[in-house]
Amino acid sequence: MKLRLRLSALHCAVILGTTALPLPALSASGAMDDLLKVLRDKGAITESEYRILRNSAEADQERASAEKEEMKKDLSEATRDTVKVKTGKSGLKLESADGDFHFQLGGRIMADAAYYDEDRTRMGNGAELRRARIFARGAVYHDWFYKLQLDFAGNKTTLKDAYLGYRGAGNLKLTLGNQKEPFSLNELTSSKYITFLERALPNTFAPGRNLGLSVGTHGDNWGAKAGYYFEGVHNGSSPKSQGWGTTGRVYYAPLAEKTRVLHLGAAASYRGSDGDNEIRFRERPESHVSGTRLVDTGTIGGYRNQKLYGLEAVAVYDSLSLQGEYIRSSIDVSGGGSDPDFSGWYLFGSYFLTGEHRPYHVGSGTFGRVKPASIVGKGGHGAWELAARYSSVDLEDGGYQGGEENNITVGVNWYATPNIRFMANYVRASTDPTSPVKYASAGDEDLNILQVRGQIDF
Amino acid sequence: MKLRLRLSALHCAVILGTTALPLPALSASGAMDDLLKVLRDKGAITESEYRILRNSAEADQERASAEKEEMKKDLSEATRDTVKVKTGKSGLKLESADGDFHFQLGGRIMADAAYYDEDRTRMGNGAELRRARIFARGAVYHDWFYKLQLDFAGNKTTLKDAYLGYRGAGNLKLTLGNQKEPFSLNELTSSKYITFLERALPNTFAPGRNLGLSVGTHGDNWGAKAGYYFEGVHNGSSPKSQGWGTTGRVYYAPLAEKTRVLHLGAAASYRGSDGDNEIRFRERPESHVSGTRLVDTGTIGGYRNQKLYGLEAVAVYDSLSLQGEYIRSSIDVSGGGSDPDFSGWYLFGSYFLTGEHRPYHVGSGTFGRVKPASIVGKGGHGAWELAARYSSVDLEDGGYQGGEENNITVGVNWYATPNIRFMANYVRASTDPTSPVKYASAGDEDLNILQVRGQIDF
Amino acid sequence: MKLRLRLSALHCAVILGTTALPLPALSASGAMDDLLKVLRDKGAITESEYRILRNSAEADQERASAEKEEMKKDLSEATRDTVKVKTGKSGLKLESADGDFHFQLGGRIMADAAYYDEDRTRMGNGAELRRARIFARGAVYHDWFYKLQLDFAGNKTTLKDAYLGYRGAGNLKLTLGNQKEPFSLNELTSSKYITFLERALPNTFAPGRNLGLSVGTHGDNWGAKAGYYFEGVHNGSSPKSQGWGTTGRVYYAPLAEKTRVLHLGAAASYRGSDGDNEIRFRERPESHVSGTRLVDTGTIGGYRNQKLYGLEAVAVYDSLSLQGEYIRSSIDVSGGGSDPDFSGWYLFGSYFLTGEHRPYHVGSGTFGRVKPASIVGKGGHGAWELAARYSSVDLEDGGYQGGEENNITVGVNWYATPNIRFMANYVRASTDPTSPVKYASAGDEDLNILQVRGQIDF
Repeated sequence: MKLRLRLSALHCAVILGTTALPLPALSASGAMDDLLKVLRDKGAITESEYRILRNSAEADQERASAEKEEMKKDLSEATRDTVKVKTGKSGLKLESADGDFHFQLGGRIMADAAYYDEDRTRMGNGAELRRARIFARGAVYHDWFYKLQLDFAGNKTTLKDAYLGYRGAGNLKLTLGNQKEPFSLNELTSSKYITFLERALPNTFAPGRNLGLSVGTHGDNWGAKAGYYFEGVHNGSSPKSQGWGTTGRVYYAPLAEKTRVLHLGAAASYRGSDGDNEIRFRERPESHVSGTRLVDTGTIGGYRNQKLYGLEAVAVYDSLSLQGEYIRSSIDVSGGGSDPDFSGWYLFGSYFLTGEHRPYHVGSGTFGRVKPASIVGKGGHGAWELAARYSSVDLEDGGYQGGEENNITVGVNWYATPNIRFMANYVRASTDPTSPVKYASAGDEDLNILQVRGQIDF
Repeated sequence: MKLRLRLSALHCAVILGTTALPLPALSASGAMDDLLKVLRDKGAITESEYRILRNSAEADQERASAEKEEMKKDLSEATRDTVKVKTGKSGLKLESADGDFHFQLGGRIMADAAYYDEDRTRMGNGAELRRARIFARGAVYHDWFYKLQLDFAGNKTTLKDAYLGYRGAGNLKLTLGNQKEPFSLNELTSSKYITFLERALPNTFAPGRNLGLSVGTHGDNWGAKAGYYFEGVHNGSSPKSQGWGTTGRVYYAPLAEKTRVLHLGAAASYRGSDGDNEIRFRERPESHVSGTRLVDTGTIGGYRNQKLYGLEAVAVYDSLSLQGEYIRSSIDVSGGGSDPDFSGWYLFGSYFLTGEHRPYHVGSGTFGRVKPASIVGKGGHGAWELAARYSSVDLEDGGYQGGEENNITVGVNWYATPNIRFMANYVRASTDPTSPVKYASAGDEDLNILQVRGQIDF
Repeated sequence: MKLRLRLSALHCAVILGTTALPLPALSASGAMDDLLKVLRDKGAITESEYRILRNSAEADQERASAEKEEMKKDLSEATRDTVKVKTGKSGLKLESADGDFHFQLGGRIMADAAYYDEDRTRMGNGAELRRARIFARGAVYHDWFYKLQLDFAGNKTTLKDAYLGYRGAGNLKLTLGNQKEPFSLNELTSSKYITFLERALPNTFAPGRNLGLSVGTHGDNWGAKAGYYFEGVHNGSSPKSQGWGTTGRVYYAPLAEKTRVLHLGAAASYRGSDGDNEIRFRERPESHVSGTRLVDTGTIGGYRNQKLYGLEAVAVYDSLSLQGEYIRSSIDVSGGGSDPDFSGWYLFGSYFLTGEHRPYHVGSGTFGRVKPASIVGKGGHGAWELAARYSSVDLEDGGYQGGEENNITVGVNWYATPNIRFMANYVRASTDPTSPVKYASAGDEDLNILQVRGQIDF
């Protein structure tokens, strides 16, 4: 049994229900009025007969009008109670007519391959599903929302977003559950929309997703968000208290037009433990297929707390954009050891050859989906973007020799459709470790990486 | 491309197709009839002309009626072949017009945090996603049904329900696959609806979900279910036979009204192994964030079989309800060791300050979704429930020193909407182990727990 | 709030918009025309009055016609922008009216139980969820498609299909991501449709799913596909390059009618490594509940490359079908060791007692869903199929003693509905290892297996 529907009742409503003008009723002909007048004027019918027949014709008209009014009323009630079903860029979207209930289902697939030309550090060429995700999100009773997003890359399950929230208290938005801490524009921008295959080196400092409670708000050209979080998913079997962090971010966009943006942001986080927690910073060379890291502090014992600071700036001028961040971590170690300060920064520029721009969302202070002006599959050629980045991270301080890395990346992105993108990055990663870190031998390492990605989100 | 539908064809049907009364056809005016009569009576037209014109007017009417009849027929056919789409409490519901095919998609998120004040047993404060689930369920060809439900909490995948079934054999319902064994009201009540954050201590005995085949039936005030199950998911790489269990439950509800319920139930299970299986009972102190257990038999070797007995009773009187259970496990150990008997029980009461009640489902003999009388997001304040519980488990017998635990819990639940709930529990857990169990040192432990949950299901 | 839609606007369209014939307009009665003529002919109205009134009546008609034309236009636009929603065999299907956008969501559940009667190899009776999957698939902008399929059996996450693709280049289909390599009809036939519970012994050689890029095409009675793949999912933490394979398959179907099929196919694969990869062939005895293998080469070190060859043949004659394959693997081992050649083959026949046939899809060169002539739940008894198979694998060559196994299987399948199937297989597995393999002791093993499955896909 095949159930198939083609639905267009909105249009039914438009057609049947919106003739608000006093049109001649369908059942009452103007010709009847005219004929009666002629017959009366010629004496074929008397004035009183005319009036009776006139009333009869008017009754016809009123009956028809009443039927129409009823139609209009029923249809407007029907329209009030409808669910909108959408497909297209998204897998599935449902929305109740009053907008109070939403449901959306989708996911993303990213397939990567990478080739490494290394000096001495063993990398390993190959391919991987970088991300394979599904999500469900929605809203109920207008004021409540939720999202559940799961990643299955590497045949492992990773809970990404898993939260519920409330947006009924004025301009405030409360979110409870696993969510991104408001720190670092690069981290907060969805992996679907980041300009390069991987986020820049200083991303090692970004707390990313943790379980907590946050409150956010925003205006026409600014936003702010703060929250309290527990670090990671509780082990469940380990009788240790979890670390925690309290994190806040503010941003101001003096320019927040469609194709002209100036965004300035700052974030801070204070993160602590009960004294038995450890901390470690390490980062892959902006390439994920190989698990090898060129910089790695190793486990820093006696970790007491950490202060994180971040600065962000972006300018968008039509097809051109410039983005940069600086992040610093100051760690307080118990015992006699000196307290290390680690830091990193990046700067990148991107240019669309085909005239598109990076779209800014002032509500979240992040960048979103690029919409190609012409679409492959509809006779177009897609959007083409060139990009270059310099990034740097320094994990050497206070006697901790995690290494320092400086990377240059050039990339080209092809947006075949709004939700399909192919990317290619060449990365030149350079380190000069004073002592060997895991996998990486001592001495200069100048690593060349060529990596490509095919990506779809639905 | 945006596809957007507002659909209301049912209402189209109502409007266009249900004018079963012999209304004047839209195209035939009563005025015409009247005019013809007048003209005939005045001699302006002859009797035979009148008849011809009368026929012509009737033909107009019949043509219009025929068009309408066709509309009605087409629309009634259309209505027969439609799919209903719903959103709201549930993420997505589809239903064919004949009701033979269903499909539903949804999930649940529970975010917990817990603070522990312990005497000597190490617990560890923190937070966790207690449950993060998605499910798909449906029915095909009326008689067949299925459900697949997955939990991803803790970044692990756990298959929950995964079954297919047949309900076409009279009042019987056959279910094949991973499913809850029919034992213990507390276990059988969905985690979405349980009154406290965690089920009571004796839940350690409940078999929970296993792969098997069950048959169930029920009447207006009773139900029964029995099945044969293999224990756990087969290891797949271990050349050992799985344990098994045969389990049955009956219940009788002399009172099964909407707000007045009296439920009495009994269940039993006989569980065996091929002699090389082990058994272990242990339970967290009605708090899941910490993995520490205060009672734990450890692995009992030489396990041959087990007899499980359970008794249930619930009374609901408007906003007030009382629920209790007693469970006993008698274990047969091979070799000279004495055969231990373990047991536990709980009793709890709950009261809705806002007038709601715990809804009973006689079909499954369990309790379901509380519907708040007023909803946050629609101008309301939600439902408020107070609850208190005493629970006890004794894992000391026959030389096995698993410990004994007695807990007092008080809780408050706030149902903001029918599918969003916030919970807070204070638990006082007391043990006096004769010998240390894992994590727990010997001597009295009086543990205070404060735990909270935010929960949504969709 | 319950949102409920019964949608039938297609039928609205049919009713309101397709009266293309010059029917009398609803508002203009033929009776009016007739009356005017009579009145004119009798001199009750003058010729000029007649013309004016005639015009007035025509104006009524035109107004009504215009309204109808507008309806038709609006409705045809509406129909162009609609989404079709389906349920039934599949959980959920959406399709835009232009067919350019699709979205489908579904899954499968297979619950197995097995009993083993062994000579000396330890097997272990039990049950398992053999497969528990969900998938999302779709198409966007006509030319692009994607699929994400996940398996959660055994409480593990396994990425199955995870790809995106392009079909806009003539008759070519490009696919990027995790996908089945085009090798072995048995492997390429979905587990939903294979004739026995498990694929035949030589399936140990089939590469199965890997991450790569493929290109395929097909005609009315032939098809070809080739691709380049990386082996397995990249470890991510191991600094080794992945193995790779380049694989191609061609098939020709001189007979490709609905119930008469002759299919001939050949496939080859050249698979390599950077010299540090290992290879291993092993296979369960066509039963999956127990993890024990009777044949196992163990890890073959120094693996350099492998050449795989496969031949396929199938004949379908109404309810009867015969299918066979031969697969050979030639391994190149570095160092002095001799290079082993392993091989296997199978042949099976199946017959539908109830008249159905195995449906062939020439586009993929595989077999699909059996549609029972009568359905349980709609008054029918389903389809019944008998099947028998002989299969053989030889993993002994060049000094590698992986064993040789010969199996006989007889099976019966009951297709209750098109998407629900119950299967029972008796397998007689015989080995005569020259040396013991893992779990299996030396000497003859004659293993009898009885296994059953309940399966649904949605």
